[in-house]
Amino acid sequence: MEIRDLFLDNPLRKRIYVDGKAVKVGLTEVILTPTHNAETHTCTPNEPVRIYDTAGAWADPSFHFDTSKGLPLIRERWIEERGDTEAAAPSYTSDTPFKNRPIRKAKPGARPTQMHYAKKGIITPEMEYVAIRENLALLNGVEGKMSPDAPRSSLFIQHPGGIPGVESGKIEITPEFVRDEVARGRAIIPANINHPELEPMAIGRNFLCKINTNIGNSSMASSIDEEIEKMLWAVKWGSDTLMDLSTGADITATREWIIRNCPTPVGTVPLYQALEKVGGIVEDLNWEVYRDVLIEQAQQGVDYFTIHAGVLQRFIPMAANRMAGIASRGGAIMAKWCLSHKKENFLHEHWDDICEIMAAYDIAFSIGDGLRPGAIADANDAAQLGELEVQGMLCRRAWKHDVQVMCEGPGHVPMQMIAENMEKQLDWCDEAPFYTLGPLVSDIGAGYDHITAAIGASIIGWRGTAMLCYVTPKEHLGLPERNDVREGVVTFKLAAHAADLAKGHPAAQYRDNAMSLARAEFRWNDQINLSLDPERAREFRSRGDKEFSRDNAAMHHCSMCGPKFCSMRASLEIKNLAKGE
Amino acid sequence: MEIRDLFLDNPLRKRIYVDGKAVKVGLTEVILTPTHNAETHTCTPNEPVRIYDTAGAWADPSFHFDTSKGLPLIRERWIEERGDTEAAAPSYTSDTPFKNRPIRKAKPGARPTQMHYAKKGIITPEMEYVAIRENLALLNGVEGKMSPDAPRSSLFIQHPGGIPGVESGKIEITPEFVRDEVARGRAIIPANINHPELEPMAIGRNFLCKINTNIGNSSMASSIDEEIEKMLWAVKWGSDTLMDLSTGADITATREWIIRNCPTPVGTVPLYQALEKVGGIVEDLNWEVYRDVLIEQAQQGVDYFTIHAGVLQRFIPMAANRMAGIASRGGAIMAKWCLSHKKENFLHEHWDDICEIMAAYDIAFSIGDGLRPGAIADANDAAQLGELEVQGMLCRRAWKHDVQVMCEGPGHVPMQMIAENMEKQLDWCDEAPFYTLGPLVSDIGAGYDHITAAIGASIIGWRGTAMLCYVTPKEHLGLPERNDVREGVVTFKLAAHAADLAKGHPAAQYRDNAMSLARAEFRWNDQINLSLDPERAREFRSRGDKEFSRDNAAMHHCSMCGPKFCSMRASLEIKNLAKGE
Repeated sequence: MEIRDLFLDNPLRKRIYVDGKAVKVGLTEVILTPTHNAETHTCTPNEPVRIYDTAGAWADPSFHFDTSKGLPLIRERWIEERGDTEAAAPSYTSDTPFKNRPIRKAKPGARPTQMHYAKKGIITPEMEYVAIRENLALLNGVEGKMSPDAPRSSLFIQHPGGIPGVESGKIEITPEFVRDEVARGRAIIPANINHPELEPMAIGRNFLCKINTNIGNSSMASSIDEEIEKMLWAVKWGSDTLMDLSTGADITATREWIIRNCPTPVGTVPLYQALEKVGGIVEDLNWEVYRDVLIEQAQQGVDYFTIHAGVLQRFIPMAANRMAGIASRGGAIMAKWCLSHKKENFLHEHWDDICEIMAAYDIAFSIGDGLRPGAIADANDAAQLGELEVQGMLCRRAWKHDVQVMCEGPGHVPMQMIAENMEKQLDWCDEAPFYTLGPLVSDIGAGYDHITAAIGASIIGWRGTAMLCYVTPKEHLGLPERNDVREGVVTFKLAAHAADLAKGHPAAQYRDNAMSLARAEFRWNDQINLSLDPERAREFRSRGDKEFSRDNAAMHHCSMCGPKFCSMRASLEIKNLAKGE
Repeated sequence: MEIRDLFLDNPLRKRIYVDGKAVKVGLTEVILTPTHNAETHTCTPNEPVRIYDTAGAWADPSFHFDTSKGLPLIRERWIEERGDTEAAAPSYTSDTPFKNRPIRKAKPGARPTQMHYAKKGIITPEMEYVAIRENLALLNGVEGKMSPDAPRSSLFIQHPGGIPGVESGKIEITPEFVRDEVARGRAIIPANINHPELEPMAIGRNFLCKINTNIGNSSMASSIDEEIEKMLWAVKWGSDTLMDLSTGADITATREWIIRNCPTPVGTVPLYQALEKVGGIVEDLNWEVYRDVLIEQAQQGVDYFTIHAGVLQRFIPMAANRMAGIASRGGAIMAKWCLSHKKENFLHEHWDDICEIMAAYDIAFSIGDGLRPGAIADANDAAQLGELEVQGMLCRRAWKHDVQVMCEGPGHVPMQMIAENMEKQLDWCDEAPFYTLGPLVSDIGAGYDHITAAIGASIIGWRGTAMLCYVTPKEHLGLPERNDVREGVVTFKLAAHAADLAKGHPAAQYRDNAMSLARAEFRWNDQINLSLDPERAREFRSRGDKEFSRDNAAMHHCSMCGPKFCSMRASLEIKNLAKGE
């Protein structure tokens, strides 16, 4: 399929731009059909619904659609104008069309991080971009009211001084609010100065709940083209960030192609490339090799690094005797390194050195949870919680360097133990954004683990987790392919949306209401276009019902019940009958 | 595909029988491969894991596998020996191979219901069957300990006098415990005296969480053969009960074929057939037509009836003005009837007459929630909660007739409002089993609504819902087909299992532990066979990894990470390294 066709398949979902002072923000507008009144034979127009868009220029018909040219450099001028960065000599080469692109680093002594600016009181274009992008309630003209339930995870409620209209009324997310959340470490805007293609976004529990997509090859499967395709599928279906977890061939070139074409932040686990550099021999890993990898990836434009610095020697015996040992690849590598050298984790020992590199490029930490449970029986055990406390200490040290931080979380956790994870993370990590893998609420879901994980993700998202790492149906069984990416992304968009709804986000409720009204009024095209995966909804609606098409999409039933047993059809009649009472 | 092949596809998952005093109970035994110790070159055998089986004789290699002959009549002698029923003249005919089968009804004045026996202190073979079937902890030799969390929904904790070993130790579910739960209305054993083919099962929150599968044609799609196939797919993948919601052609014959071949309880909504009998004209419905349908279906062997008797006139104006009106087909039909006749719901007015019919055949009520919310915006509103209170009153009236009862629940409910549903149902319906459709935690999941519903189902199951009605990916879009049934059933088995885990069920945890140990030891065949859908797990495991087969299923990696980056492989090494410390 042509890339253009992948993104421009639906004329009723189109990319629009909203202008700010310094920025032009892309969103999706879902065009609705009018409501037809059968009695008066009149039509009432329905306002379009504006929803969050992650596809960047790929959703713009005027784009060149050529992956060898990459995305427009929307942040280039913002970065240059701040004047705190300078050209850097490249530390890596890649045989790609992008090999001569300019590379930047901080000027000596400068900290060009969003957190640094935020603490200084400076509102950056990135912050303004985020504010407009998150303003879906305002953009849809929705008056809001916050949920009194679960105050800790409810939107905005904890913001000191409040936001105009917290209780009810117009809810505006201001650039100043974004700045304040970033300054206090409760949200991050992952945005490497070498990833000027990126559309800024925020991860924090007072913003929309986000999702991450993992892609990447292994030594056994996939190619650069397949990975680019997975990236495009991820952003098409709404993935907010992307992790390239490649461990196979062409790591550097694969990443270059992805970053130059990816409109969302890109994260990696630098340890994987470091291990490749020492021929896969864990014992041969050392700080120097690792540092070089950090700098290479920093210059390429990776926006956040997962670093397993919380896997300390004292936790390893606890984890070794678990039901499922150490389920994190990075965690297992570092544990093995510690054991063979009888030394403390070198990532922990070099934390301040790492912070300085992160600060020079504005890379955010995603502090790894190397000891996350890989089995229900291991959930919330001493190894896991011990590491979480260390993650909190590492957070605070990173903040001193003005480096943005989020913390990674579990893993396999049964439902009744999920809330404790969130509570402890908020307490111990001073409200740094939590970013969880699932959690998976059972071990026996093989083949359906996107669902096992979406159940836990919805619950922990509701409780305040800022970003949910997707899981695909292939989890535990094999490397995800393109279709698994779609299945995982849409499933996790659903989990994140359910979390936003439960937190009382007025824009989330607005979209559900628009959907339900379309359902009650038999506006089938609107139902399809308001759903998370319109292509699948249309396919399912049409199948087994040959009469259905775009033209007669107003038919008052579907094949599930047929015309006589359609409750929505009866409801229309009941409404009229009840009026006459 | 031959039916035999559908059920006998896996030699490592086989049906076994456990003998009781009066019964022989079918279960599935998952045969595990031994653990291989690489250092000592020795093998340690792993005990087989016994799991719940819903497939009945279809999973038995000695069965005839002929749908025109039907299932063995395992309950026939039990029913006859009780001596409180007699032959009845058939009230219906169907052109099926089963047309001359004998039909029974209660002797005058008798109430051959499980609740009646239970209240009298009689332990029936059905109760003994349930006790053995639910005894998975005991059968697997697991010592148990109950979760101190969520005491209201935790297993057994509320049983007066306690169960031996509630705190920890051997947990045995005794026939006496089953009897007591049925007598107090906290569990039901749906088992019509005219469905002698059925393997008795219990629905109640102190037993394993159950799932229901909806099948049935509509006027627009499906045939008898397709419906039988869906039924077989449902019981193969673990569905505990089946609702035949046919509204199209051949309702009687379709149901006859299904009941004679279905090893689980079968439920219906009799209103659908009543509406067909009056040509689809709601206004023409009346008690006499409805009563005749009840008797026909009672004689056929339907085990539970959904009856929308809680939709009262006073609730209709509230529901008419909702976002999505009345989403229940039965609810919408009764509301329309009330409005056009300006009379109270005739199902409510004839409740005691209905109870007498139910008691004569031991049919359980599934009191419909005709006003369940069909949109997030309508959740927990006055119409819904008003009906729930009426459901409670109807429960208590049914119990006076010794009729077993469960209550149906929502619908579309956001996560933060789910717990209230469960709490109010327990309070208002005196702990009668709750049976919910989802709940769906958002309105925008079209095409993925099995997941939207599984999220809510897991949460409400954990809180104490006894049975979860599955939802398929086709929900809101079209009639489910065979593959949708599989997808919906497995997804809901996962939700029910997650709920059992969260409630601290020791047998649920045992299966997860067996799975995780298999994962940690690279026993791939065991992982596959312990999962909820071994066929899919095997397919995913093999794809993209041509080296994988049954013969080399012990390979120490998969295509997700490849050998060098496999955390489970590293964990084995870490365990050995840590031992040497």
